[in-house]
Amino acid sequence: MIRKIRLFTPGPTPLLPAAQFAMAAADIHHRTAEFRALYQRVLDQLKTFVGTKNDVLLLASSGTGAMEAAVSNLTSPGDRVLVLSAGKFGERWVALANAFGCAVDVVNVPYGQTFSLDEVRKALKIETRAVFMQATESSTGVRHDVEGVARLLKKADSGALLVVDAITGLGTTHFEVDGWGVDVIIGGSQKAVMIPPGLAYLGVSNRAWEAMEISLNPRYYFDLRKERKNAHKGESSYTPAIALIAALGAALDYIASQAGGDLAAGRDALIDNAEKCAAMTRAAVEAMGLKLFAPAAPAAAATAVLPPAGVDSGVIVKELKNRFGAVITNGQGEMKGQIFRVAHIGLFDYMDTIAIVGALEQIAISTLKIPDFEFGQALAAAQRVFAEVVSPTKPELAVSAR
Amino acid sequence: MIRKIRLFTPGPTPLLPAAQFAMAAADIHHRTAEFRALYQRVLDQLKTFVGTKNDVLLLASSGTGAMEAAVSNLTSPGDRVLVLSAGKFGERWVALANAFGCAVDVVNVPYGQTFSLDEVRKALKIETRAVFMQATESSTGVRHDVEGVARLLKKADSGALLVVDAITGLGTTHFEVDGWGVDVIIGGSQKAVMIPPGLAYLGVSNRAWEAMEISLNPRYYFDLRKERKNAHKGESSYTPAIALIAALGAALDYIASQAGGDLAAGRDALIDNAEKCAAMTRAAVEAMGLKLFAPAAPAAAATAVLPPAGVDSGVIVKELKNRFGAVITNGQGEMKGQIFRVAHIGLFDYMDTIAIVGALEQIAISTLKIPDFEFGQALAAAQRVFAEVVSPTKPELAVSAR
Repeated sequence: MIRKIRLFTPGPTPLLPAAQFAMAAADIHHRTAEFRALYQRVLDQLKTFVGTKNDVLLLASSGTGAMEAAVSNLTSPGDRVLVLSAGKFGERWVALANAFGCAVDVVNVPYGQTFSLDEVRKALKIETRAVFMQATESSTGVRHDVEGVARLLKKADSGALLVVDAITGLGTTHFEVDGWGVDVIIGGSQKAVMIPPGLAYLGVSNRAWEAMEISLNPRYYFDLRKERKNAHKGESSYTPAIALIAALGAALDYIASQAGGDLAAGRDALIDNAEKCAAMTRAAVEAMGLKLFAPAAPAAAATAVLPPAGVDSGVIVKELKNRFGAVITNGQGEMKGQIFRVAHIGLFDYMDTIAIVGALEQIAISTLKIPDFEFGQALAAAQRVFAEVVSPTKPELAVSAR
Repeated sequence: MIRKIRLFTPGPTPLLPAAQFAMAAADIHHRTAEFRALYQRVLDQLKTFVGTKNDVLLLASSGTGAMEAAVSNLTSPGDRVLVLSAGKFGERWVALANAFGCAVDVVNVPYGQTFSLDEVRKALKIETRAVFMQATESSTGVRHDVEGVARLLKKADSGALLVVDAITGLGTTHFEVDGWGVDVIIGGSQKAVMIPPGLAYLGVSNRAWEAMEISLNPRYYFDLRKERKNAHKGESSYTPAIALIAALGAALDYIASQAGGDLAAGRDALIDNAEKCAAMTRAAVEAMGLKLFAPAAPAAAATAVLPPAGVDSGVIVKELKNRFGAVITNGQGEMKGQIFRVAHIGLFDYMDTIAIVGALEQIAISTLKIPDFEFGQALAAAQRVFAEVVSPTKPELAVSAR
């Protein structure tokens, strides 16, 4: 049978057709009025998408580039910082902070869990200059309590800046960036905004801009002060990723268009969509007798699942690809082989979700040989969730399928 | 939730990404060596796809244009012809033959059925110049017995030409065009070859070329003798639909590439794929308690289903579109409101099939309120068919999803 290759990965996510067309047509030069108008518009749209009145900057880099920019711009060698780590991307904050000579405190909880606010409170020191965390830990499918950490820092009257990697959090989780006092929030292009990798964006608070003035770390490409100055003129400091920016503009236009031109409402609909796909998927895998890896705080961005005892999750990843064209992800870091992850961030719908559950059922029976499991059981569980949470009469967001 | 618009229609069918890219890039002039090479290659590939050593011609028209070409080139006013009609497209043969002044005999069987060879034998006259039929009647999802009719004509030593509208038959049904003695076989671009509408193609036998020499019907745009002369020089008589031809070349390349470069084997894999999607779908709708409209001779191109008594099939068509983005088709002609049709011709896979069955289950419960039907029952039936007919270890055809 035909086997279309479909991404069910938490980044890159499936591409939005309107963004693909814009990308293909982006035959423009960046030092022109035409590009400046596009760039300015996209930066303004990103403020709405992120949900902040702060400046939002775009970088031609992966998300890790923006994470490095946060560390290099906000700290000086020897500064004490606190990292809240619960997976591979928490560890990346530790590595970055070490690379720039910080004195790093870490709240470290096992993969699949999230930290308690008590643990954070105990680790916070008077001299802590910044707290680095994920909104959702993509490697484990766990959602962290950004609001709680922000409130704790305010209550403790801490001078620490709060820096949030929301690369898989934006578009899958609600944030009140300015209200909570998030100083830096970071997103990536290949996630909820449904375009290819290559762009990172960050919202930066006034407190963070002030902190940059005293940072002693060397920085050039990622010097956010220079980037901000140029952004105010509708320019990027260095050659921008033109086609990706055109794609991002088209994607944000699409998201807004789905809510009558209201980008914030469109983003909320995108979050709601991910939550519903995630709820269907969680019900299905539990009906299959499998265990969720993060049952206490599951992220809507992706569902992480433990395979049956003794089975390498790589077998499931491989079978889904080889037999059904469905690309999911294995565990990362120390969880490789221990979990598999199905994404809901970005352009997924009911049809995609039912299809991936169907493919998982096939593998559950032919390969995993899960006892007492019969065809239709997991699908029925997903069907029931859909029937309960999605009203048959409410209009739905439409997108031209590719 | 997001609701991607997906075609489950028997034409236009979902577009092959590689063909879309070729179409977008087709910025060439048709009176150039570059185009002539493309055109010649596509005509040669079509011979293999159709499965004939006869000339195959391309027309910038819908399939109906090629049907008209067959009538206008092969008959003269007053000629006696026989049409085997069992639906809207059978009726189109009658209308065309009447338009060109033929004396038309018709074997007319009700929608949803196929004719017996006995009925054909009885209707055949010594003076019958041509027999017109469908390979599969798209309006009802019925497969007709082309081989049987061809054998009957040979056995009766009839001089009648056999003209087959295989617009939804090619790529979903096996033909031995030359072996059986099919004189004209007609295909369309928006069907199994997975590109947009706008091209028709026809394979024409030597007997048919001879018949054209004595036809007295007026013809110009659809003069196949002129088209053939030009085709032998790698040219079309009139401005060709360049982008569609580039797309067709890419699609045929793709079909071949999926069978190690063997286009005929790739076509057979496409037929096999449609048959498997159809088998899954038939099992699912029967498990839903619904009746197939053509249980005796179901086509692999599309499955036609009767809604529950008292329900207008348009309700199901509308709900699938509005709630799930899935575009299926209502009945055509006198069957409008009486059946709904789900297509399998072209670029459909396991994931698509499971998804459309899932959406039908939602409607079965929320709208049709089918008694004693529970979520998962139809899906499980489709799952069991897949598990039985598709080996988990056999490699599958891969295509980049859009």
